[in-house]
Amino acid sequence: MITDDERLARAALTRTVEPGDAHAGRWLREYGAVGFLQRLRCPADDPDAFPGTGEKRVAGWRRRAEGAEPRRDLDTVGGQGGRLIVPGDVEWPRQLDDLGDTRPVGLWVRGRADLRTWALRSVALVGARACTPYGAHMATTLASGLAEQGWVVVSGAAFGIDGAAHRGALAARGATVAVLACGVDVPYPRGHAGLIGRVAEQGLVIGELPPGSHPTPSRFILRNRVIAALTRGTVVVEAEYRSGSLVTARAAARLGRYTMGVPGAVTSGLSAGVHELLRGEATLVTEAAEVIELVGDMGQLAPARRGPVLPRDLLAPEVARVLEALPAGRAAPVGEIADRSGTTPDDTLVRLYELHSLGFAERQGDDWRLTKTPTDGANARRGGT
Amino acid sequence: MITDDERLARAALTRTVEPGDAHAGRWLREYGAVGFLQRLRCPADDPDAFPGTGEKRVAGWRRRAEGAEPRRDLDTVGGQGGRLIVPGDVEWPRQLDDLGDTRPVGLWVRGRADLRTWALRSVALVGARACTPYGAHMATTLASGLAEQGWVVVSGAAFGIDGAAHRGALAARGATVAVLACGVDVPYPRGHAGLIGRVAEQGLVIGELPPGSHPTPSRFILRNRVIAALTRGTVVVEAEYRSGSLVTARAAARLGRYTMGVPGAVTSGLSAGVHELLRGEATLVTEAAEVIELVGDMGQLAPARRGPVLPRDLLAPEVARVLEALPAGRAAPVGEIADRSGTTPDDTLVRLYELHSLGFAERQGDDWRLTKTPTDGANARRGGT
Repeated sequence: MITDDERLARAALTRTVEPGDAHAGRWLREYGAVGFLQRLRCPADDPDAFPGTGEKRVAGWRRRAEGAEPRRDLDTVGGQGGRLIVPGDVEWPRQLDDLGDTRPVGLWVRGRADLRTWALRSVALVGARACTPYGAHMATTLASGLAEQGWVVVSGAAFGIDGAAHRGALAARGATVAVLACGVDVPYPRGHAGLIGRVAEQGLVIGELPPGSHPTPSRFILRNRVIAALTRGTVVVEAEYRSGSLVTARAAARLGRYTMGVPGAVTSGLSAGVHELLRGEATLVTEAAEVIELVGDMGQLAPARRGPVLPRDLLAPEVARVLEALPAGRAAPVGEIADRSGTTPDDTLVRLYELHSLGFAERQGDDWRLTKTPTDGANARRGGT
Repeated sequence: MITDDERLARAALTRTVEPGDAHAGRWLREYGAVGFLQRLRCPADDPDAFPGTGEKRVAGWRRRAEGAEPRRDLDTVGGQGGRLIVPGDVEWPRQLDDLGDTRPVGLWVRGRADLRTWALRSVALVGARACTPYGAHMATTLASGLAEQGWVVVSGAAFGIDGAAHRGALAARGATVAVLACGVDVPYPRGHAGLIGRVAEQGLVIGELPPGSHPTPSRFILRNRVIAALTRGTVVVEAEYRSGSLVTARAAARLGRYTMGVPGAVTSGLSAGVHELLRGEATLVTEAAEVIELVGDMGQLAPARRGPVLPRDLLAPEVARVLEALPAGRAAPVGEIADRSGTTPDDTLVRLYELHSLGFAERQGDDWRLTKTPTDGANARRGGT
């Protein structure tokens, strides 16, 4: 269980240290969040607390720690239905621990879904902001296809490929997560304010930075490591040489995640970066089924089981209610399931995706049904065991 | 040395058995060409000569062996400046032996170059007949790039990608080989009569079938194994699912040759076959340099040496003359080298490509120079050893 002090300290630290600062990560590991913050705020207590970390960097931390108002930040985000999740929370996606000392201090989250269960079955779709109509078409098609198969589409809410990916997932009534390089209350880019709002309604908007923070070039680059670490694999749809999307893909590869690329014409500069990747270790993909074929092996980030990964009685009550509302022996539309579970269709959909990630439910067209596990089938044929 | 009888028998057998007939290949191995032909022509001598081969097949062989007039075929092709090369000839490309019992009985050849030395440094470019302008552009560009680096471009003289590949090589004043599925005197397709004539002038036109033979669907497919076996690697530029070009690429892979593919838009059906290949063992390539990087290691089909692979005094006299005409210490245009060697520019170019394959000469832009071997360089710096 996370104490209030711990959560408050981590909230303050998200305003104190820049995302991906490995120096800060080291002291956080050494002193814990409360101890690290304490040493920043009261230099007199332990004047030589940060050997090996430059004075200028520490001075910056101290100044920002001084000004941090974590309770106000938590209230701001809470007022928008959001929260801060930190390592140790049930909802914390443990695969982020692969980032070592650059692991996020915490993640600010807007949206109803459980990030941990969604992330278990997620794929990143990334690519150029100035994409071609071909790239946008491919991103939309892949995202819709992934969403239709119950996969969660993660992207960065930018113009171009990112936006097309989120829209493709939303259009398929699917699950999508936007990882921002700014505060989760800051609609950036401005032109995507509506899109980011819809993602927060139907999916999740997350980020490392506290409310009100604005993006910077280095924040964009460091945000990419979160996208890479959170997901089972990263698909690059269009990217020029040396683009940020390639950084995400390479980060994914270093973390042992799958890297994939969508080919395009050699004559298009926006495919040059993808082709470079495909000449390395990335796998060429042309449709959602090929992505799923690759990342579908749940061995790496979740227990490799065919049935549910959690006992039913450990489900959160609101999730258990949706599971109970699923009819036996047939698929049902979301509306019907919502009526039976006594909640809204949007909320029902969020829970259905969680149930899918946990192995209890599966999508069939636009409808949902209880998972037929191989064991169930065998039992049914043998008249039960 | 090949005897006249052996060459005549093989000429007759090219008219007797279909390309790639493994049954025929087995008896050819067992009885030799003269013995195989003898047993076909005089059934009474050895009535049970072909156990395990169907009577209908043997009857067809006998009928065609009866009608074969090898001396006339040799004269016909000889009258066009051509020849029949057979296993055991110095000019026989020994890598074709990898085909086992489906090895060609012989190869009818039009053109001045030495097939064996050209094939040492050759790459196949193949693809769809009904290609897109994008595919044609890529084939031309790759072929020109390969030719400019002294590589020989091998293709099948068909419409579409094949034609673009030959033209790209010819346009770069490079070396190209057309492998036909018909007689080397039959311009097929008719619309490529001019192109095939130019290839015979500046390069080589080769095939397994005797003069006057026409192509059939199975001959096209079996021709592909020769393209695959002859070259260091096969690049598929555009191909639909289940196309003949994929057959060539897979044959190349089975023979231990490199297989490569040029990506295109996922939305183009003519790239679907290539992408399928690239999701397997083929390597994605976008430019000639990448092809050369892959196939450039001479280890597989030729001795892995940095210098010439033959002593100078084993060169044919007409090749040695061109080598002597190369000036010391600088590159020279083909015209100048032709003047100094007392032969035509076209003929000089053919010999320069042979010298390149053998490691004596290299191309520099449109000019040619003596190869600077690492050893030469070291010796020069040390004042010779």
